[in-house]
Amino acid sequence: MLTVGQEVMARLDEIAACSVAGPGVTRLPFTSEHRGALELLQRWMQNAGLSAHLDAAGTLIGRREGSETTRTLIIGSHQDSVPNGGKYDGILGVVLPIVVLEQLKGETLPFSVEVVAFADEEGVRFPTALMGPRALAGTFDPAILELSDRAGMTLGAAMREFDLNPDDIMSLQREESDVLGFVEVHIEQGPVLQELAAPVGIVTDICGIERWAVVFEGRTAHAGTTPMELRLDALAGASEIVVEVERLCRQAENLVGVVGQLDVHPNAVNAVPGSVQFVIELRSGEDDVRRQAAAALADFTERTAARRRLSVECVRTYQQDAVPCDSQLCDQLERAAAAAGLCAPRLMSGATHDTSAMADLCPTSMLFVRCLDGISHNPSESITANDSDAAARVLRELLLKYQSSE
Amino acid sequence: MLTVGQEVMARLDEIAACSVAGPGVTRLPFTSEHRGALELLQRWMQNAGLSAHLDAAGTLIGRREGSETTRTLIIGSHQDSVPNGGKYDGILGVVLPIVVLEQLKGETLPFSVEVVAFADEEGVRFPTALMGPRALAGTFDPAILELSDRAGMTLGAAMREFDLNPDDIMSLQREESDVLGFVEVHIEQGPVLQELAAPVGIVTDICGIERWAVVFEGRTAHAGTTPMELRLDALAGASEIVVEVERLCRQAENLVGVVGQLDVHPNAVNAVPGSVQFVIELRSGEDDVRRQAAAALADFTERTAARRRLSVECVRTYQQDAVPCDSQLCDQLERAAAAAGLCAPRLMSGATHDTSAMADLCPTSMLFVRCLDGISHNPSESITANDSDAAARVLRELLLKYQSSE
Repeated sequence: MLTVGQEVMARLDEIAACSVAGPGVTRLPFTSEHRGALELLQRWMQNAGLSAHLDAAGTLIGRREGSETTRTLIIGSHQDSVPNGGKYDGILGVVLPIVVLEQLKGETLPFSVEVVAFADEEGVRFPTALMGPRALAGTFDPAILELSDRAGMTLGAAMREFDLNPDDIMSLQREESDVLGFVEVHIEQGPVLQELAAPVGIVTDICGIERWAVVFEGRTAHAGTTPMELRLDALAGASEIVVEVERLCRQAENLVGVVGQLDVHPNAVNAVPGSVQFVIELRSGEDDVRRQAAAALADFTERTAARRRLSVECVRTYQQDAVPCDSQLCDQLERAAAAAGLCAPRLMSGATHDTSAMADLCPTSMLFVRCLDGISHNPSESITANDSDAAARVLRELLLKYQSSE
Repeated sequence: MLTVGQEVMARLDEIAACSVAGPGVTRLPFTSEHRGALELLQRWMQNAGLSAHLDAAGTLIGRREGSETTRTLIIGSHQDSVPNGGKYDGILGVVLPIVVLEQLKGETLPFSVEVVAFADEEGVRFPTALMGPRALAGTFDPAILELSDRAGMTLGAAMREFDLNPDDIMSLQREESDVLGFVEVHIEQGPVLQELAAPVGIVTDICGIERWAVVFEGRTAHAGTTPMELRLDALAGASEIVVEVERLCRQAENLVGVVGQLDVHPNAVNAVPGSVQFVIELRSGEDDVRRQAAAALADFTERTAARRRLSVECVRTYQQDAVPCDSQLCDQLERAAAAAGLCAPRLMSGATHDTSAMADLCPTSMLFVRCLDGISHNPSESITANDSDAAARVLRELLLKYQSSE
């Protein structure tokens, strides 16, 4: 007899086969791999006593009605992966609640429950993401249907080829009063729970993010013939910024930041770099902390450029405010963990999730599951059956003891 | 009536047409553009009273016999350019002495003179260079004939297609006793003469070079989910080295250095860089200075890696010792400049030249010509007719007053 955690792992192994050939899992939205995953999920939903249907945004929804109310607690995550991703990112949060609800088939729940498998959270096929939760929250922008993948197919056309009618997406918006909340189970994709030796954790905030594209222009010069004092070395300038981003974030609370992308021109061993482009990314659970850090770094960047006689361009290319999770729903998850015999630490999510978009509709919380060395978006992404079992126990307790906040 | 400098400029404009279409001059060795340049040069050599022939290494040699001795002063440079290079790099040092010798047609010179146009100094078509001077100096390695260009053609095959017989290269070696010296006129390719407001300068040393390929390996991680204290950021580590290379070279005498090439992996805005490869290049006219700097930087690199728990690999990929020019020949150039009414400052060459290889055969010196803003290897490479005239006057005085050191 398998534990619930082992059952979850077996199904995750099975659905991992719905993938393009190659290392790890590659399952992009509105593809035959997506279709294969939906068929498996639909069968498992039906076995769990859920009535399943695919909505116009490509979200597979399995629903059971409550004994007292049609008001609904939604549980779910995304079905898609990055190219050569792992077996757990997203899909764990779809498969695990199905298995838990199959266990609870004989139990009476007063409220309705839906398990959702959103089509596209990773945003790797089309330059957009989170269509499924945005459709439910009423924040979907139909203009994105015109965006194309690399093969030149628009999102709208890909959806129609997948037997969906994107014209109906606008009608998917839920009434806030119909939705009790949204809970997402997801691998942490970071090392914090492993460091804390905790199988699961409760997410308090989804961090805000901003990105700044910086270009330093100096002067390309021959690295042998140009005296040091006549050089305008864009890379030496950029390097000071890289080090300062790290220093500032290390000494701050609730702030992470990095220069992850940096390109040198002309990038030759014997040329003083004439131009460097790089991107500063900052994340925090507190928008003020993030904004203050951005202002301090913009100032440091301007001063560094001025001192070095480099020209500088510094443009904010992305901004997304932090999304706080619902404190009462977090408390309920904490009590559920305690009832399951677990101490679940609270932590921030440094990544965006479907929950970020669902927060526009209803109270949200997330249950993070420890993952090995924090590795994700990688074929070697790994979680244990024991941790999966712990998460299933927490979710089961939450469902059995769930209290509406009204 | 054109000045000598204007005549030189007109011919440089004319030979610049021997180029692949596109911005600037693109004239690679053993191509139809090379052939076109040789035909022009050969005509001009004949007009100057020189007997011209192409040797087995593709060097065009124009010779006039001395009235007293067959011992020869060789003057020249290279005919080839980088892709989209300028009109002066190399070819100035071929055309200018031809024009000067045409002027001196009626003068008696006791020693023989050769003007040489080497085929390949830039080394952009084949991964080798300096074949012509090495053949004369007896340091040619026939193994390089097997090296291929990007189209898969070997150097040996390209030479045969150019009607050369590379088997004869080994017989080109000159007797040291037959050669008085080698003088190369070349654009500075740096900004020093412009800074000093001097049209020409005398090269005292060709700098030594060493390059170190460094790889920092940390751990690629999600830039949102990984706390600062758990990161192993290879780019932050590399940035410290970039800044230190600059700091060390700025405070040293007779030393320049740069990190000109740096590549980040995975180079994504939202990923902590797991690995960075970069190259440290150091140049000095004094080999000890260069070696001490390399040792200090290797030590700094190791300590930085250790402090950051990065693994590091640090390999010297290139080393070339400094080549001192002949002090007596430098003195003669200085006296020739004075006779021409010019004050020619002495400076180091930060770049390698044909002279580097000729130094294995005979006393050498170089006459640098000021170039606009030090820009070279670029279509906007620029010199003036006045500076060209100054260089021609110096060379004329040298030839008229040249004293063998014996």
